[in-house]
This record gives sequence, C-alpha cells and structure tokens, in this order.
Amino acid sequence: MEIANIGEFGLIDRLTSELKPKNVSTRYGVGDDCAVLSYPDSEVLITTDLLMEGVHFDLTYIDLQHLGYKAVMVNLSDVFAMNGTPRQITVSLAISKRFTVEDIEQLYKGMRLACEKWNVDIVGGDTTSSFTGLAISITCIGEASKEDIVYRNGARDTDLICVSGDLGAAYMGLQLLEREKSVYYSQYDDLQKKLALAQQEGNQEKISNLKSQLSNLSMPDFSGKEYLLQRQLQAEARGDIIQKLRQAGIRPTAMMDVSDGLSSELRHICKQSGVGCRIYEKQLPIDYQTAVMAEELNMNVTTCALNGGEDYELVFTVPIGDHEKIQEVDDVHLIGHITEQKFGHVLVSRDGQEFELKAQGWNFSADASEE
Amino acid sequence: MEIANIGEFGLIDRLTSELKPKNVSTRYGVGDDCAVLSYPDSEVLITTDLLMEGVHFDLTYIDLQHLGYKAVMVNLSDVFAMNGTPRQITVSLAISKRFTVEDIEQLYKGMRLACEKWNVDIVGGDTTSSFTGLAISITCIGEASKEDIVYRNGARDTDLICVSGDLGAAYMGLQLLEREKSVYYSQYDDLQKKLALAQQEGNQEKISNLKSQLSNLSMPDFSGKEYLLQRQLQAEARGDIIQKLRQAGIRPTAMMDVSDGLSSELRHICKQSGVGCRIYEKQLPIDYQTAVMAEELNMNVTTCALNGGEDYELVFTVPIGDHEKIQEVDDVHLIGHITEQKFGHVLVSRDGQEFELKAQGWNFSADASEE
Repeated sequence: MEIANIGEFGLIDRLTSELKPKNVSTRYGVGDDCAVLSYPDSEVLITTDLLMEGVHFDLTYIDLQHLGYKAVMVNLSDVFAMNGTPRQITVSLAISKRFTVEDIEQLYKGMRLACEKWNVDIVGGDTTSSFTGLAISITCIGEASKEDIVYRNGARDTDLICVSGDLGAAYMGLQLLEREKSVYYSQYDDLQKKLALAQQEGNQEKISNLKSQLSNLSMPDFSGKEYLLQRQLQAEARGDIIQKLRQAGIRPTAMMDVSDGLSSELRHICKQSGVGCRIYEKQLPIDYQTAVMAEELNMNVTTCALNGGEDYELVFTVPIGDHEKIQEVDDVHLIGHITEQKFGHVLVSRDGQEFELKAQGWNFSADASEE
Repeated sequence: MEIANIGEFGLIDRLTSELKPKNVSTRYGVGDDCAVLSYPDSEVLITTDLLMEGVHFDLTYIDLQHLGYKAVMVNLSDVFAMNGTPRQITVSLAISKRFTVEDIEQLYKGMRLACEKWNVDIVGGDTTSSFTGLAISITCIGEASKEDIVYRNGARDTDLICVSGDLGAAYMGLQLLEREKSVYYSQYDDLQKKLALAQQEGNQEKISNLKSQLSNLSMPDFSGKEYLLQRQLQAEARGDIIQKLRQAGIRPTAMMDVSDGLSSELRHICKQSGVGCRIYEKQLPIDYQTAVMAEELNMNVTTCALNGGEDYELVFTVPIGDHEKIQEVDDVHLIGHITEQKFGHVLVSRDGQEFELKAQGWNFSADASEE
C-alpha cells in the first residue's frame, strides 16, 4: 500500500497503535506534543543518532527489519556504555515514495523487537517525507544512579583495559557483502546483455536458456561465514556485559562502546582521562571467521580489529585490583593497561615491536560524494 | 573550508567548544556516549523533529542561520505546548559535501541564538555525511511539574478556545517567497539567454548592457510585507504566552502548538478530549499583511489562517470561569468554545453559516515527489 493512501496520521496510527509502555518512568508516550517521563531517583541519559541511506546503510545488503533492529541497538549501546539502563526511544523517519506502508511496518517491527529485548518503550517521534531515500533518527533515553554512571574520563594509570566479545567481524561482514554484491551484479549484467542479444537474434533456445540461468542466479552461499553476516546485519548492544559486571561487583573507571573502531575509542578515553594506553596485539579477541576472511581478502586482520568499527562491543577500564574478578566474567577480554599520558597510545605487536595506535575516525571525504 | 579538511571530530570540536551548560539539570553535555541530565523534582518532556532539505526547507529562501534558529524554535514550541520549560536539546546533522565548515557554523549560530533566548543547553548529537543535501534532527528535553503539564485530552464542554498571536502569516510568507523566486528566476533566465545570443553575435555593447542588467537583478523589494517574511523565516516559540498565563493564574485544560494548521490541531484536541468545537471566522486573529497578500494571490484568507500551518502559535482551552482573566492576557484571542462531541467541529462564518472544520494535515502525496 502506498503511504499517500493513508497519509501521515494514518501511518503513525498504524505504527504506534500497539505500543504499550512497560516502564514506570514512561508516564505518557505517543500522541501529544511531547512524551512525558519521570526520573525522580536517577539521572537521565540521552543519546541520539542519525542514519542516512547510502551513507550508513545500503538496502541491497540489509532488509528493513534488520535495519530497524540495528538502528535501535546502536542507540541502546550508547546508554549501556554509560553503565545505564535504556528506558525509552523516540523514532523519527523521513521516507521517500519508494517505500510502502508494509516496508515501514517491517522497519518498525525490527525496532520493536530490539525494544522488547531490552524492555524499552517507543514514546514518540516524527514521520515525514523525503525526496531521497530513507533517514532514521533515533534518540534513546536511559537512567542510571549518579554513582553508577561511567564516563570516558575516569581511566587511571595502571587500570586494566578490557573489551567484550570480539572485534573486526562486523567490518568483515560488510566486506563480504560488498564483494558478493559486485560478483552477483556482474553476473547479472552479463546474462542480461547476452539475453538482449539473443532476443535481437530471435534465438528461442538461447533465450530460454539464459532466462533460466537468470532465474537460478541467487545470492551466493555464505556458509562458513554466517557469523560475519550476523555481526554486520544484526548488531547487539551488550547490556548483558553491563549486567555481568554489576553481578561481579565491578564498576568500570571509564567506558565506551566500539562504534568507530577500538583505536579511535581508546584514544578518546585516553584524551579525556589524561592518560596513555598500552595494548597487546596477541590479546585482541578475533573470531576465527574474521581471521579467515581477512586472509581471503589479503587484509591485515589486526588493522580490521582495531579500525573496522560497528562492533558495538564495550571497551572499558577497571582498577588493577579487580584483576581476578574481571577474569571470571564471561566474554570479557583483557587487552592491555592504562599508562601515564607521556607514554602515548601503544600497540605491542606479536613480535614485541611497539606501534602508535592510530585513530581512523569516520571521515567526510571517505564516505560521501558530491550530490 | 571543506569539512573533509577537519573531519567529523574536528567539526564537532569547532561547533561545541563554546557550549557552556546553564541549567542545573544539565549534569554533563557534549563529549561522552550520552548526555547526563537530572530531573529529581519534575517530569521530563521529550520531543523530536526531523527536517529534510527540499521537503521542510529550501535554502534558496532561507539562510542557514535562520534555518538553525527555526529548527530549534519548532522543538521548543512543542515543550511550551505541554506547559513546560525547555532545558536541553540534542542536534543531529547529516551534511552533503556542498556545505563548508563556515556554512555549518552559521547553522549552529542560529541554533545557539534560539537556545540563548530560552536559556536552553545543547548537550549532544551526531554529525554525519549525506549524499543529498542537509538533514537536521533535533530532540528537545524539557521539564514541568506533574500538576502543570497540559495534554491534548483535557478540553471539556463549554471551555473557551483561545489562540495566541495571529494565523496564516507564515504560510503567506512562503507563498510570497515562492512567487518572487519564480519571477526572479524567469527574469534571470531571460537575461542569460539574451546574453548568450549577444556573445555569439559578438555585440560588445549589448553584452555589457545585459551584464549590467544581470548584476542589478536583485531579489525584489518586500516592503510592506516584512511581517510575512519574518513569520516564515524567523519562527518564534511562544514561551512568553506560557509565562503570561502562569502570571495570570490560568492553567489551560488542553493545549497544542499550531504547526500543521489550526483546523488540524483543533480536531486533534477534540478527538483526544472526546468533545466538539465551535469557532467563529470573525474572531480569527489575522494580520493586515496576511489579508492583503491573500487578496493579491486571490486566496481565501480564512482558509489560509485555518490550514496554512507553521504559525507556531499556541491553541488552548480554558474553563469558562477564566473568561475575564483570559481577556486580560495580551496577544491571546478568544475564537470559540468547546461543545459536546455530537455537535462536531464547526466553523461559523461571518454571515452566520456553519461549516465543518476540515483537517488538512500534511500529506505525503502533496509534498514529496518520487526520487
């Protein structure tokens, strides 16, 4: 169904009619000029992200439900990275006419699934039209007691540096999708050209043969690489790590989520804390599939792990006195330690050489071309 | 300067380096995964808007500083419409390469001016690239005590319907800009064609004459219509009305800001409150310039006032017992009253005829064409 058939208010009604607030802090959700929240006993955390089609996502790789899920998860991840609990989100969408009502319902379904996983309420937003593709802006509101909040600026000399899960897999998943897409489209183009030729010639046998080849042309087999795809297409915010740290009685001194890449995030923590860091290549958690894929693509797997981004893991520091406790926490890896600022940002390679950790933050020149 | 020269982090540093929080509720602003706010004694209000170039604004009409100002004001307006006080905003921008660092600083300057006017802190956001123009997403956080919050659903039979300021002028301002733009461009095109011809002919006298005409071609004189332009280009949120109502001891029973148009907003209030309404054409506050412009364009001024939108005035209802008090409040106009639901939504024309108030909400088909 075209969105024009039901209009803005009709679309909003369809998307929001089933939303039932679950949090006591959600006093009033969708349906007025503002949502109304109540946080008498804790601090309010706010984070926001704007995702643009063509820049942050490519709908030839990711379906709308996964996209909705991911768009929410990356925001929840920021709240977890403050050691907080996400409670509400607002969702703003700008939608071009190419999308149907059913498309947007798929997108919303993914968002709802992500919210249900962490008991988060959708409390408002904005739905509007766009001339060019899809834009998604999500704001997440969370809470934490004042004492619990973990900033980026609390890392101290000798603190241990930890990271959850593994690194570089989401980036490898993206490389895989890009490679297979280009293979697929080159085969597709090739067959289409041959078909056009056969149709000019009027060669019926050739035509039916080529049509059958075209219909059998499917996206390639990703077996053995499922984990990479999952990491790219189904981001998960690590609220489970936050819960485990609490259970273990550990409060990180500094924490961030890994969105731009470990190197970049560690440099942020060091800058804001006025310290240096020293991490060890051999300690970096890297999945087997990530390593195999890097090998296949002739890329340096350590560089991918350090700078790939989109891991949505947590990088955090804990006092050295928590050494034993942290080793007991499942899926957390000790990768190095904080130093005095003068020692800089050091990566110690497998063969013992020292390298400067470089930030490769996201850059305008790299991923946007002139309109 | 091109944004690529300083990158994402460089741009964010430039935009946010001067931001100093002014509100006690702002515990921590820009610079971490989340902003941290504190609202122990009041409810938290949240509203968000997403503005897309080509849909919500046209940079041939509005400069970036005014656009930034307006983008903030429309969000503050939503917080005022809940009878709240705006305290913080987050700002997300998606920027194509056509914009320079200086452009974005202009946009931010407008945002800062709007924030300074209402003592609001910019506490976070997101800055990213776009393939196609500019997208602006702003979330505003405000506060109100539980007892003060005014929803849309509190209007009761016999309540008086009031509206602040005047209606239809912002819409007339847009019509004016569109008309003058098309006149300007048709003259410009005409001269350019003549110039090309003269250059082919090599007629130096003609060339210099046409060049001089081109350089003297300026945007037209808007004298006598300044108010319409101001209403379109420099939206103001009516926090002053909220303050005046408080001073007068008046708490509205229902309230909204007028963004889509008075008809649409009144229907929302009636629907959510389970009531009807009856308003009088002759009571609608319309500025002289709006009326003159409607006449010039051969449009019905009442339709413009009811459905033009972008007024950012407040429409609200008060108990009939406040009749005398409300008449004392400057720049507030009584336009009708609430009825039982069965009487519907009625506009009484100057000659006493009754019409159904039609909603002309914003519609996908009307303002977005296929990409």
